[in-house]
Amino acid sequence: MQPLPKDSRRGFLKRAAALLVATGLIGRRGEAAAADPPEVPPWMKAPGAGFNPYGAPSKHESKVTRTLGRSQPGTTGSGAIRTPLESLEGTITPSGLHFERSHSGVPEIDPAEHRLLIHGLVKRPLIFTVDALLRYPMVSRIHFLECAGNSQLLYQPAPPNLTVGQTHGLVSCSDWTGVPLRLLLEEAGVERGAQWILAEGADAAAMSRSIPMAKAMDDAIIALFQNGERLRPENGYPVRLFLPGWEGNMSVKWLRRLKVVAAPIMTKDETSRYTDLQANGTSLMFTYPMGVKSLITRPSHGMTLSGAGLHQISGVAWSGHGKITRVDVTTDGGATWHEAALTKPVLPRALTRFRLPWRWDGAPAVLKSRATDEAGTVQPERAAFIAEHGSNAVFHYNAIVACGVAPSGEVKHVYA
Amino acid sequence: MQPLPKDSRRGFLKRAAALLVATGLIGRRGEAAAADPPEVPPWMKAPGAGFNPYGAPSKHESKVTRTLGRSQPGTTGSGAIRTPLESLEGTITPSGLHFERSHSGVPEIDPAEHRLLIHGLVKRPLIFTVDALLRYPMVSRIHFLECAGNSQLLYQPAPPNLTVGQTHGLVSCSDWTGVPLRLLLEEAGVERGAQWILAEGADAAAMSRSIPMAKAMDDAIIALFQNGERLRPENGYPVRLFLPGWEGNMSVKWLRRLKVVAAPIMTKDETSRYTDLQANGTSLMFTYPMGVKSLITRPSHGMTLSGAGLHQISGVAWSGHGKITRVDVTTDGGATWHEAALTKPVLPRALTRFRLPWRWDGAPAVLKSRATDEAGTVQPERAAFIAEHGSNAVFHYNAIVACGVAPSGEVKHVYA
Repeated sequence: MQPLPKDSRRGFLKRAAALLVATGLIGRRGEAAAADPPEVPPWMKAPGAGFNPYGAPSKHESKVTRTLGRSQPGTTGSGAIRTPLESLEGTITPSGLHFERSHSGVPEIDPAEHRLLIHGLVKRPLIFTVDALLRYPMVSRIHFLECAGNSQLLYQPAPPNLTVGQTHGLVSCSDWTGVPLRLLLEEAGVERGAQWILAEGADAAAMSRSIPMAKAMDDAIIALFQNGERLRPENGYPVRLFLPGWEGNMSVKWLRRLKVVAAPIMTKDETSRYTDLQANGTSLMFTYPMGVKSLITRPSHGMTLSGAGLHQISGVAWSGHGKITRVDVTTDGGATWHEAALTKPVLPRALTRFRLPWRWDGAPAVLKSRATDEAGTVQPERAAFIAEHGSNAVFHYNAIVACGVAPSGEVKHVYA
Repeated sequence: MQPLPKDSRRGFLKRAAALLVATGLIGRRGEAAAADPPEVPPWMKAPGAGFNPYGAPSKHESKVTRTLGRSQPGTTGSGAIRTPLESLEGTITPSGLHFERSHSGVPEIDPAEHRLLIHGLVKRPLIFTVDALLRYPMVSRIHFLECAGNSQLLYQPAPPNLTVGQTHGLVSCSDWTGVPLRLLLEEAGVERGAQWILAEGADAAAMSRSIPMAKAMDDAIIALFQNGERLRPENGYPVRLFLPGWEGNMSVKWLRRLKVVAAPIMTKDETSRYTDLQANGTSLMFTYPMGVKSLITRPSHGMTLSGAGLHQISGVAWSGHGKITRVDVTTDGGATWHEAALTKPVLPRALTRFRLPWRWDGAPAVLKSRATDEAGTVQPERAAFIAEHGSNAVFHYNAIVACGVAPSGEVKHVYA
């Protein structure tokens, strides 16, 4: 395999072209190819379908859906539904496939009746309608959102027999637009010494987290739009908190109030849940940023390579601490690593697409990716990660993921 | 109104906060605001809805759809359907709302049967299945796509009584992923002196354009994915040509063949159509890049401002010649201009969101935006544009757009 220079379009094309020559053609030659005009397929022989006010994917892509995880008995919508990462490319997740984690289903909120309250230790308690929020200055940012519990099956001793999306699909990436929280807090007038904010959702679980004031005054957004249009119901319509890079549950959906307080509230969602029991017997709490992480999405578990020769290795990397600076890929289980090309622009706290062309010789192979972020943190190997954190935790798993390729072309998740 | 520094987040927030103080609060004060706990709305009193494999917008947003334009009698899907720009924010257009221009409807293509042929003046005529294309190295790029005929109603003597989307909604912006066309051409081996490529679609119109080889070898993409998922049917599923910055019809959808040729083919779509009769009696042909352009999307025609005070002016700018470097906004019909903040990252040949907070004093106002691109080209005023191009043309309208605000808050499209 040839290494590829980092993020140079001309370099990328040049190396890829060289690899194509080295590996033989993929395009099929044949007499038919020279024919002019070529055979006319049936769908060219009559006018096609008309227009739809709101479009949908092709029926041939109907299997590309989110995967439902466990749901609590006796309730609806308590659980998670995952993004089919193995079917996607680029970095934007279509909103219809954005993952969802809900604690008591998706509330049917009338936006005309919804209110956002800012109260507690403020000079002027304020109530905002959605229409009022729409008058404020806004910002747009492309950011990933990842559930703290993403990839939790990899704490288990055996590799799950599931696709990348089913295992790691509690991460998605959107263009989020909303009002900087700082503006609203300045309008309300935060009292001196108030260092925390209770954020509460308008779902039946009243999902609640304590947010440090520093984050609220830094890059927190009161989000109203997702990928251009208004938030989807399962992502907090009509208004959610968005905390770039931090574990997903803190970006409280269906946001109804922000209470400025002196100290963390110790809600159920930050005590009984979203804490991590470690190997040494202590538990981690308030573990906000998501760690540096990467995944190869294609080829990945459940796929079969269609013969030896050229293939593209494609995946996503991200870090709650800023930009991805480098992704290395191995196809020999870690004996040699090659720097992948990162798609520009590389944005902080956003999914970053990496790619490497690969000439598969038909022999068994083990593929892994290893991301590095701008803080200099390198994604750990699984063995080191488990040695440090143990296997009692369920959150913040970010170790390297491996897949084995058999001579048949079958790709399977492995621990390696 | 206070001007805003260009693209500085801290500066943006600081100025916006200052303007908030100057203009008075928007958030509503009241006794209810201090209440703890606040009133519990009905949607918090029972578990919400469960999960959907593929999500959809809220039913409260059901009016946010594409608008169908004219359709040819006797055929389906011949015409255009427009993006509701006035309802969107950020820069990514959700694929369900991406504009569509079709010449004979949307063909129902079986991706397993679809073939892409490269032939003509090549050493090795080649046929590609979709599965074969998926093995090639890919790139992802965020780019706008604009129909050459966008905004054509503004060639008319009176301003159209239509929304921004209905008038200018033949522009959208997506994260496109596909194989660099250059790679496939190099595999086929282009003969010396072959300077053009005929691109043909697999719709019943066999939509065809002649593409200069230089563009094909530069940044042309054989696109397979749009905003993460596979192309939508109306945007060329399973494979389309994508030519960044060039008029939309050249990015031939449902791409079935590329024939390498010595000279332009002079197809119906580049002779009888997609040419522009100018004021001086000559016609322009082969007018590829879309000109520098901007639009204020909010407030815009058909909206009513909810009272004086702070409002955000928000819009999009783009240029087929590269990046947007500056957008200026006037609220007094052009007497004074203020530089708007551009959302980072500003990408070449992509929609760029600009914003300016505005304190409306309740008096009549005329809003306009004026974009400048990295080639130094400034979007022209309408009068100058019409003087140069006349009003017989229907394509490549890119002049400045104006809206008047009445004391009642009503916003109407005007020529000013």
